[in-house]
This record gives sequence, C-alpha cells and structure tokens, in this order.
Amino acid sequence: MARAGTRERLLRATVATLASQGYARTTARAIAGTGRLAPGVIYYHFADLDDLFAATARFTSQARLERYRAETEGVTSAAELVRRLRRLYAEDAAEGHLAAVQELVAAAATSPRLADQIRVETAAWQDFAEAVIQRLVAGTPLAALAPPRELATAAVATYLGIEMLSHLDPGHAAPGPLFAAAERAAALFDSLRPR
Amino acid sequence: MARAGTRERLLRATVATLASQGYARTTARAIAGTGRLAPGVIYYHFADLDDLFAATARFTSQARLERYRAETEGVTSAAELVRRLRRLYAEDAAEGHLAAVQELVAAAATSPRLADQIRVETAAWQDFAEAVIQRLVAGTPLAALAPPRELATAAVATYLGIEMLSHLDPGHAAPGPLFAAAERAAALFDSLRPR
Repeated sequence: MARAGTRERLLRATVATLASQGYARTTARAIAGTGRLAPGVIYYHFADLDDLFAATARFTSQARLERYRAETEGVTSAAELVRRLRRLYAEDAAEGHLAAVQELVAAAATSPRLADQIRVETAAWQDFAEAVIQRLVAGTPLAALAPPRELATAAVATYLGIEMLSHLDPGHAAPGPLFAAAERAAALFDSLRPR
Repeated sequence: MARAGTRERLLRATVATLASQGYARTTARAIAGTGRLAPGVIYYHFADLDDLFAATARFTSQARLERYRAETEGVTSAAELVRRLRRLYAEDAAEGHLAAVQELVAAAATSPRLADQIRVETAAWQDFAEAVIQRLVAGTPLAALAPPRELATAAVATYLGIEMLSHLDPGHAAPGPLFAAAERAAALFDSLRPR
C-alpha cells in the first residue's frame, strides 16, 4: 500500500515539475523536491528517469482519458459535447497536464522509449475520439463523407495544437474563442441532424 | 557580408541541432559543432542562448512562411491548396523545421522571451491562414457561418498538432491519410462552390 502511494506521489510530482520547470530542469532532485521525497526513492520504483517519464506519460494520459470518458458518456448532442470538452480542457490546464504533455512530447525527440509510450497514449485518444465521432455522425450525411478515423486523427491533432497554443499564452486565453466558435458550429450540426 | 553569413550559419546550425539533439542538448558547444564555428562566435552575434533561440524561432518561421506565401499565392481551388500544403509540409519535415519548432515551443515554457517570439510568429501564421481562408470561402455559405479568424486559429492549431503527431512518428506517416482525407473534402468543397 505504502509502496503504491509513493509511486503515485512520484508520478504526480513529475507532472508538476515538468509543468512548472520544463523538461530540461526536471531532474531527480527537482522531482524529489516537489514530492517531498528522497531522490533515491525514484530508483526504487523506476529503472531510471527515462522509465519515470514514460510512466508519467501513461499516468497523466490515462487519468485524463478516464475523466473524458466519464464526462462524455452517453452525450449525443454536439453542442453539449463541446461544452463538456471545454470544461475538461480547463481541468487539463489547471492540473498541469497540458504543460507536462508538451514537455514530454518534446523530450520524446531524444527518447525512443518515451516516444513509444506517447504513441500508445495518442492511439488511445484517437480510439476515444473515433468512438465519440461515430456516435455523433451516425445517421448523418457526414458519416459517408468523412471517415471517422481521419476525423479522429484531425480532432486529436487539433486538440494537441490548441494545447500548444495555450501553452504559449500565459493567460490560456487562446481556446476561449475557439470553443465558442465550435459551440456555434455544433449547435448548427445538431439542428441539421435527423432525429 | 561575412558577418551576416556567420549569423545565418548559426541560425541554421541551431535549427539542425534542435532537430537532431533536442533542446536539452542544444548547448553553445553543440551548435558551434554543427555549424563548424567557434562557440565564442555565438556571443558576438547574440546576447546569450535565449537570444539565439528567439532569433531562431523568428528565422525558421519567417523562412517557411515566405515559402508558404509564394506557393499558395493565387490558389483559389481548395483541392489544389491541400495538394500544395502537403508538399510544403514534407519540406517542413525534411528541413528540420518541424522538429525544431516542437523543441522551441517546449523550451518556451521556461523562457518568457522565447514565448513572446513564438507568439509573434504564431500570429503571423494565423494572419496568413485567415487570408487564405477568406479567399476560399468568399461567396460561399461558409463565409457567414464560420468566422475566418477562428477557422484560422483552428487551422494553425491543427497544423501544430499534426506536426506534434509526426514528430512522434519516426516514419512521419501520420499526416499521409489526413492530407488524403482533406484532399477529398476539399474536392467536395470545390464542387459545391458557386463559380
């Protein structure tokens, strides 16, 4: 029990340190400082920092994906979906998930292990997006025109890009007008949909 | 003349080093090694590495934006536009621009100076996207439905996200099916447009 607790504390501390310090400054010492643990504890739970970063990518991605699944379950209105995504996105930012992911993606350029893990997580998000999109376009002309898998890839890419834009913007203001425009488009989509 | 030549060599070497080594390993020594210059030359042209990174963001963004402008000028068919964007995107990847931008965006988390510069460059890309979109939707029902500025933000975000996905994928295969789907959608858009 205590062991599992320490492991999760390390993972949370790594997310927080990546978000506040950036990858280059996320040393074993910095992570241990954030989590108020001895640096040696890291090597009790993980082979090395690379191993810890891969586990962190998995941890933060799966935790957020669970929230996204729970919050979007059964939603069939596009407008309601966009409203929920907007709230979830605000959570992503507040929890440091957005900033940590940006750092991990950049770090993946020099860590094949981390790149592999992020590819696995990205695929899980694409599967999730594909299922949501399929539920929304079922029975509409869009279902025949745009393949859900490519729409899902585009959706995940757009999400990552919005994250990148807000990461650059200290006020995280960038997604506001974008979500507002998406909400108007979604309402239009809903009104055109066969019931 | 020689001075301008060295400055550009430093900027190109920084792009190449960021792309191949990642931000954390892009030291003055590594950049000088890539450019076959003495490390001290950096401090003759730039105040510090932060200054060099901001100049590099400006350099690679403006060079690519010039290419994008030249290649899309006068294009009014959406399908032709997507075909050209696909070629330009392949150039982005081949020149190390994609990977360097990912690294600089991540590095911006801990450098307000670099974040400012990247915001300026991103705004220039949004202006470019807005002008292209306005040219395409003029006279179509889409012009009234979707505000070009938000479409431009979404387009830039999607582009950045696709970059991120291909950055993760050693074969840079991710954008292939996406561009193919976009080309089909663009052809449909063209066929529905009033002449």
